[in-house]
Amino acid sequence: LTLQFHLLGTAAGGGLPQWNCLCRQCDLARREPLRVYPRTQQQACFSTDGEHWFLLGASPDLRQQLASFPPLWPRAVRTTLIAGIVLLSADLDGVLGLLLLREFTPLTIYSTAPVRRALLANPFFAMLTRVPGQLTWVEITPGVAFTLGEPPVTLTPLPLGDQLPFYAGSLDGGAGASIGLLLEHDGRKLVYTPGVPHVSSSLLEHYAQADAVFVDGSFWSDSELSGTHSGTPQARAIGHQPLSGPDGTLAALGTLPASTVRILVHINNTNPILDPDSPEHAQALAAGWQIPRDGWQL
Amino acid sequence: LTLQFHLLGTAAGGGLPQWNCLCRQCDLARREPLRVYPRTQQQACFSTDGEHWFLLGASPDLRQQLASFPPLWPRAVRTTLIAGIVLLSADLDGVLGLLLLREFTPLTIYSTAPVRRALLANPFFAMLTRVPGQLTWVEITPGVAFTLGEPPVTLTPLPLGDQLPFYAGSLDGGAGASIGLLLEHDGRKLVYTPGVPHVSSSLLEHYAQADAVFVDGSFWSDSELSGTHSGTPQARAIGHQPLSGPDGTLAALGTLPASTVRILVHINNTNPILDPDSPEHAQALAAGWQIPRDGWQL
Repeated sequence: LTLQFHLLGTAAGGGLPQWNCLCRQCDLARREPLRVYPRTQQQACFSTDGEHWFLLGASPDLRQQLASFPPLWPRAVRTTLIAGIVLLSADLDGVLGLLLLREFTPLTIYSTAPVRRALLANPFFAMLTRVPGQLTWVEITPGVAFTLGEPPVTLTPLPLGDQLPFYAGSLDGGAGASIGLLLEHDGRKLVYTPGVPHVSSSLLEHYAQADAVFVDGSFWSDSELSGTHSGTPQARAIGHQPLSGPDGTLAALGTLPASTVRILVHINNTNPILDPDSPEHAQALAAGWQIPRDGWQL
Repeated sequence: LTLQFHLLGTAAGGGLPQWNCLCRQCDLARREPLRVYPRTQQQACFSTDGEHWFLLGASPDLRQQLASFPPLWPRAVRTTLIAGIVLLSADLDGVLGLLLLREFTPLTIYSTAPVRRALLANPFFAMLTRVPGQLTWVEITPGVAFTLGEPPVTLTPLPLGDQLPFYAGSLDGGAGASIGLLLEHDGRKLVYTPGVPHVSSSLLEHYAQADAVFVDGSFWSDSELSGTHSGTPQARAIGHQPLSGPDGTLAALGTLPASTVRILVHINNTNPILDPDSPEHAQALAAGWQIPRDGWQL
């Protein structure tokens, strides 16, 4: 009856180190990888039977992540244990991996209607429909539970944003353009929210009732990205509530029960918590948070 | 005056091991990686001064490849030593990496007109034009030489195919939809052709005059892919002349001068030459070919 839940990647877009960055954390990840661990881009997966696995998002690093995770290695020629992929948004960092899974093997994608619209408008996705039955889309809806696996996990999409990514241009977004997920199994609750624009009161209520929460740890402060690279936006402007400060995520979640397992995910390379010798890292740990490495498992 | 030429990846699409494959080579690459080396997808780069690097193609594994290659690590915050990217086709395996280079850092892409058409028709590429001056396209033309770097390398696109990839649907292809490259520097010639649908007489002439040739080693036999996964196409049908047989690439290039450095690249996971204990591997070596690992350098 056990839910196996793994983090195959824990970094925000660009990973750690990021190709064009020599910030303190990227530099340390290259020169002292046993101090600041290199990380691939955010990717989770789960299974209740070890035979059927479900991916949460599809990261651009998915090839490398699958190769490094033996439970997901195929057991026969041209097969996969990936039984489905649940998309949380249409962001490139959560969908490009789909284009790495295109060698004529059937896939089932679970997404909301706006996310499907954004992807089906993209010609690249024709590569996933080259043979009949290759791709199955299942529409999911904010607030409407569905089950995956056997024994089943019940998933409920939590609406987090109405906007599609910049690239989707004139396409309509709408409810469910960006979601988190409540997972329920064997009487336990887990909330997975790698991208949180704002901790609303309803989201806080889901966190408060959960046994484990995976929360957007992209940025420590609102100005951290623009401080590293002038001309880039503030954290909140790109949909990530920062961790620190009186209106930050750590403060907002300071009221969670002491027993709640709390894990920061989707950590941007600019975030000082990545360095275990930083005061910010100590501060997050003191507040009860885990800062997992790739390969972390619940 | 020395040209530094590196292979950051040497596998065909899917890499080795491939996510959904348990063929002999994929299995060995997982279980005996010191016998059958894991490989990332085809990627080359070169420089003449060590300060400006040019990529040939942009593989889906580019993040991992750049992280593993110290000469291309940035030397200041939010900068890159990548001075340009030359595209050889619009195939996903040679362009998806562009979407990994999108954090507001300027890029210059060299491609033929049909390749540019295929990419500009894709909404994802809007992510590369978020700030003014982020992306510069330079059109290149089959048979028309251009130079890159200082001291310069002269590159001449060699036309290899007129068809755009399946995903481009109704878009017109045309001359240069798929190219190889002749590189000339300091009196030496190098031909780089990771995808060769057919060794034409004019291509053979370029090979014969080169000091080093990098040649499509995707498949050993025409039926190797369909033999691994029924319902999949023959090698020639997807644009790759196989290596073996009287009309194969090894036979066609058997007339090259003994002094020509000959390297097989873009090797598919189904190709038995990947196993150094295979008779096919021995046969390729006996014909004078190198079977490089990722990280190989000229």
